[in-house]
Amino acid sequence: MSIVVVGSVAYDGVETPHGKVDRMLGGSCTYIALSASYFTDVKIVAVVGDDFAQEDVDLLASRNIGLEGLERAPGKTFFWAGVYSQDMNDRTTLTTDLNVFEHFDPKLPASYANEPYLFLGNIQPSLQRQVRAQMTKPRITGGDTMNLWIEHFRADLLETLKGWDFLLINDGEARMLSGENNMRRAARAIQAMGPNTVVIKRGEYGAMLFRGDDYFIVPGYLLDTVFDPTGAGDCFAGGFNGYLAQQGIDLAQGHIDRRELSRAVIYGSVMGSFCCERFGVDRFRTLTRAEIDARFQEFKTFTDF
Amino acid sequence: MSIVVVGSVAYDGVETPHGKVDRMLGGSCTYIALSASYFTDVKIVAVVGDDFAQEDVDLLASRNIGLEGLERAPGKTFFWAGVYSQDMNDRTTLTTDLNVFEHFDPKLPASYANEPYLFLGNIQPSLQRQVRAQMTKPRITGGDTMNLWIEHFRADLLETLKGWDFLLINDGEARMLSGENNMRRAARAIQAMGPNTVVIKRGEYGAMLFRGDDYFIVPGYLLDTVFDPTGAGDCFAGGFNGYLAQQGIDLAQGHIDRRELSRAVIYGSVMGSFCCERFGVDRFRTLTRAEIDARFQEFKTFTDF
Repeated sequence: MSIVVVGSVAYDGVETPHGKVDRMLGGSCTYIALSASYFTDVKIVAVVGDDFAQEDVDLLASRNIGLEGLERAPGKTFFWAGVYSQDMNDRTTLTTDLNVFEHFDPKLPASYANEPYLFLGNIQPSLQRQVRAQMTKPRITGGDTMNLWIEHFRADLLETLKGWDFLLINDGEARMLSGENNMRRAARAIQAMGPNTVVIKRGEYGAMLFRGDDYFIVPGYLLDTVFDPTGAGDCFAGGFNGYLAQQGIDLAQGHIDRRELSRAVIYGSVMGSFCCERFGVDRFRTLTRAEIDARFQEFKTFTDF
Repeated sequence: MSIVVVGSVAYDGVETPHGKVDRMLGGSCTYIALSASYFTDVKIVAVVGDDFAQEDVDLLASRNIGLEGLERAPGKTFFWAGVYSQDMNDRTTLTTDLNVFEHFDPKLPASYANEPYLFLGNIQPSLQRQVRAQMTKPRITGGDTMNLWIEHFRADLLETLKGWDFLLINDGEARMLSGENNMRRAARAIQAMGPNTVVIKRGEYGAMLFRGDDYFIVPGYLLDTVFDPTGAGDCFAGGFNGYLAQQGIDLAQGHIDRRELSRAVIYGSVMGSFCCERFGVDRFRTLTRAEIDARFQEFKTFTDF
């Protein structure tokens, strides 16, 4: 089944201990869509400027990503630049030029309105709500958020979360949103805000999924070298969403085989790990579904007891 | 098969956000022995002062722990006091009174010398070596260490590690010992120092085992409340060692079913999690093997996909 993805399509400048790229394709929507495209049909809603390169359009198109909702506006594409610390656990933002993204007013093409899966990348909560309102009746709505919205747009975010089936969030943000330090209690508090399913990303330590009283935890994949962690969380979102849509899993149902949800978490982890192996989206230029399934099996092997 | 455990038997004063105890039984050898006693026969080598209480002797004896090597010296028992931060990820030492531990000269009773398993708790590396030299031929030697020995007794520690089959260490110490930030490379570097098996503890994030090119990773158990993390790492060591000895696993052999080693890591994780549920050793006053096996099954459930 198809999935509609909303978020940023951007250019990024990234420096890590392994190198420096001044300008390359990035943005949450880009990473989510590329990652999910290995599992299901993807259609994006985003805005770029008149500097957006044909080769970047071509890359998205090569993965059969629906681009009808990729708006071109006069001006420049959103640009972000940052530098990672030596151990890559911290990053410092050097530049944030919103450019055309500043006035992003997401409009869903009519052909998207009946799709069953919607994933709202990390944008302002009111915009996320506005997109969802344009869908006829999305079967499954999930989304991401960040500290900025949790701290300064809390009421807006809480109103938005009411309509979601799942929230994907990192552990620090889960603590901030819930006011709970313990992850189990944090997840319970977030479930009470609306989402029946909460997925908490823990960076190199893996991920957790909570649904009702049931939960699943997986450690992170051990990469020999992390070249560039930019986009890893969004690639996780793409793998997780992509597998849900591929399998037609309906989170609104009372009973779902929890192991199916766990497999979605594994595919999310797999996609996040591949993302880190090259700069920016480069890994997706060569990545195959066979490599993805082989790494899924690796997760089976190194967690088996 | 029996296991010989060497380390500290102490009194601890501990304050956590959940309460404060001025003086209670503690010490690495105590925690390791209590934990391992659920799996196999345990014999300890340690020193206490003339203030060591009969009720504490009785607790150890109630778990059938061999106390022939528990030396009583004139003076006071080792005393440590510390306070944990609000999130319990940091702790500050308030008092370290070595007392009789300062001149600890571990002497193995003759009845211990032929035991096949030896675990060297975190004491000075030269003392660890001295204990091992008193064993006829321990089949499996494992041990723990800490930042103090890694930083200031490095040559001594490296000499000691040559004779070990496995090292149990936390992630920060693994980085310090190996000079490698990446855990996979850190483990490889440590294997080159002697131990064929390296177990890396990651606190709330779980644990990893490396042997040859094979590895296993398990996330940490999600406790609703961590009352007191003191001794959790030692209880992990007790569960890990205890299971090895119970199953008669010989790490010196070329081929071992890696899943057996993984199960030892799970039992280590199970015992560490129980330890945190009460202050000090209190959880071991009521803990049963049935509870341990039930939690082992919980690990199966929440990691299954």
